[in-house]
Amino acid sequence: MLEVDLVITNVTLATMDPDISNPYGLIEQGAIMLKAGSIAWLGEQSNMPEFDVLATPLHDAKGQLLTPGLIDCHTHILFSGNRAAEFEQRLNGVSYQDIAQQGGGIASTVRATRQADIQTLFVTGKERLNSLLREGVTTVESKSGYGLDCDNELKLLQTNKLLNECHPIDVQSTFLGAHALPPEYKDRADDYIDLVCEQMLPQVAEQGLAVAVDVFCENVGFSYEQTKKVFTKAQQLGLKIKCHAEQLSNQHGSELVAEFAGLSADHIEYLDEQGVMAMAKAGTTAVVLPGAFYFLRETQLPPIELLRKHKVSMAIASDFNPGTAPLCSLRLMLNMACTLFRMTPLEALEGVTVNAAKALGLSDRGMLKVGMRADIALWQVDHPAELSYQFGVSDLSNLWISGKLIHY
Amino acid sequence: MLEVDLVITNVTLATMDPDISNPYGLIEQGAIMLKAGSIAWLGEQSNMPEFDVLATPLHDAKGQLLTPGLIDCHTHILFSGNRAAEFEQRLNGVSYQDIAQQGGGIASTVRATRQADIQTLFVTGKERLNSLLREGVTTVESKSGYGLDCDNELKLLQTNKLLNECHPIDVQSTFLGAHALPPEYKDRADDYIDLVCEQMLPQVAEQGLAVAVDVFCENVGFSYEQTKKVFTKAQQLGLKIKCHAEQLSNQHGSELVAEFAGLSADHIEYLDEQGVMAMAKAGTTAVVLPGAFYFLRETQLPPIELLRKHKVSMAIASDFNPGTAPLCSLRLMLNMACTLFRMTPLEALEGVTVNAAKALGLSDRGMLKVGMRADIALWQVDHPAELSYQFGVSDLSNLWISGKLIHY
Ligand SMILES: [Zn+2]
Ligand SMILES: [Zn+2]
Repeated sequence: MLEVDLVITNVTLATMDPDISNPYGLIEQGAIMLKAGSIAWLGEQSNMPEFDVLATPLHDAKGQLLTPGLIDCHTHILFSGNRAAEFEQRLNGVSYQDIAQQGGGIASTVRATRQADIQTLFVTGKERLNSLLREGVTTVESKSGYGLDCDNELKLLQTNKLLNECHPIDVQSTFLGAHALPPEYKDRADDYIDLVCEQMLPQVAEQGLAVAVDVFCENVGFSYEQTKKVFTKAQQLGLKIKCHAEQLSNQHGSELVAEFAGLSADHIEYLDEQGVMAMAKAGTTAVVLPGAFYFLRETQLPPIELLRKHKVSMAIASDFNPGTAPLCSLRLMLNMACTLFRMTPLEALEGVTVNAAKALGLSDRGMLKVGMRADIALWQVDHPAELSYQFGVSDLSNLWISGKLIHY
Repeated sequence: MLEVDLVITNVTLATMDPDISNPYGLIEQGAIMLKAGSIAWLGEQSNMPEFDVLATPLHDAKGQLLTPGLIDCHTHILFSGNRAAEFEQRLNGVSYQDIAQQGGGIASTVRATRQADIQTLFVTGKERLNSLLREGVTTVESKSGYGLDCDNELKLLQTNKLLNECHPIDVQSTFLGAHALPPEYKDRADDYIDLVCEQMLPQVAEQGLAVAVDVFCENVGFSYEQTKKVFTKAQQLGLKIKCHAEQLSNQHGSELVAEFAGLSADHIEYLDEQGVMAMAKAGTTAVVLPGAFYFLRETQLPPIELLRKHKVSMAIASDFNPGTAPLCSLRLMLNMACTLFRMTPLEALEGVTVNAAKALGLSDRGMLKVGMRADIALWQVDHPAELSYQFGVSDLSNLWISGKLIHY
């Protein structure tokens, strides 16, 4: 007789398990058993093993749909201030250049974030995590990148650590020191990269404050060579590798990530077939960010067909940030991935479960499978395609993280 | 000494009152007093009239922003079923034609809606209203249009009535019998219009089930002449006039609305200057629907510049519906109006307050002004532009409808 902590019956399981050979890895009239924060059993209810019916809590799902908890694998939730004023100015005809001369743009966010203490960053970060939680999100990647000096970058990563400890969402911390050139390093990008590699990265690694390292590789960010320098150092320190790549032009950042057997190349609107093939060979995940595409009114679409052709895993994330994607909603990204990028609802749901886990190098979640973390979301819908199709009507019934029922 | 029910102090007021000659009709360090469901006084706190401090409830807003409750002036929240399956089919390459031949498209929604009883429609309608309520929406227009026969259209309007009675949101009912041609009238559009005019409209008017009448005037909907016939009858019966106009082509539906001194022309991507001028002269409001524009991946933008030039009031609505805008969020529409239509945050907020009230012919709401309904929303933001700029982070602090604090 199986000893378990919770049994959910009368449930449709979208396992997202590729070993189950139908779309979504669907199991109808299913059941699932949780034990010590993990999935102990799942399958058709008629095959359910015996358990102590009197002693075990039972949850009748009434035919609702269960999926893995959603994973937002690319966010910038830690920043202070907002850019509503310049949003309004731009729509009133003020030029980017004038706004930059007034100290607007990313510089204003860096200023506000440097001034904020951990307490303040923690509170706003928590509110943003709460919003994602209410949408069924159970894991969130959170990048630094608005500190841009040693102390302030470490402050952001320490906030990630605190959020991870205090919030039910599992927070995966990424160091993005090479996000933009801080004003005090104007025209000295190489010097700043030296600071990142020689001062910041060793401390990040030593203090265990990040799992992965990210770089904004772009003609308005850091060059291929500068990016390579950061990746080389990160790899020496045992950190995983990600890249903001090919968003506005093709700098071959994605190939570089592949060379380092990195986790993911993100944005990738300008990625070409050579880059796609390099990613396929290395097992690097493509993270598409439809929120930034929408907000910037981009027209260059990511090469979805090429990614399909070469079987590169595709993930989808919110990229929530104050400059290019002030949209704190992963559910909206499911709809945008389908509407704007013509991804299928199946690809969209894979993109925020199994493939998002891959993009974070996490093999313990993103699927409903025995042994995986019991991060699970119960939805008041009949079919998983509804999660991508409809937006705005609250359809999350229950959420468990590590087997614990969450009150949101 | 003023006798009032509630005093809110330490608040920034975005009154949206055109008589206050700064953007948003902003009053800083303000206060507002409510009495019997209406606004009894508002202004700078230093000018506040005397009131019984011991006997009157006080709410310290701590510097937060107060706006009129938001108004969603164009929705189709009453329908049964959903079209997720065909959304998925289309993204998997199945053609519109094949889906229509399978009985998909609007026909499937009409089928499901005809089969649903009032109870079922009420429950799903209530859930959709709840989602809007949590975003600060206090008035929602709700159209019939998925019944398409006498009994089923009346059933939908009765559901509107029931929702209005039972839900804190004020529901404004619109009769849209001429939404699409029902299958049993295939190739007999004129006969169906006769049914609308001779059978449906008189009952709708007699039973007081709708305030306004709407028609889908389009080459895939009803012609200019058919639309005119419905409007003529509606006007005879004392009903107000609205129109789905110029969405896919210029049928001059907007001019027709103006001729009837109608409330609004909605969608209007293909509206020309002649139509804009007719609307300006008649005082007809332009309702833009960025959710449908987004979901259909349209490229023809509504003529925002012409509407500005001729001073036509612009409103913004969700158009929530299962076919072309399955996005039940008015807050998202604020962002989309700015991002996709390049409207300013000021125009966006006017579009869901003062101008949305105008589009519904309601002179008792949409502004903070003495004598208006106390439908008010308190936001945890510093500036009203933030309401359009950021999406997804919950920023509604408190909501009152007719002076009553709402628990959402
Ligand atoms: Zn990013
Ligand atoms: Zn509509």
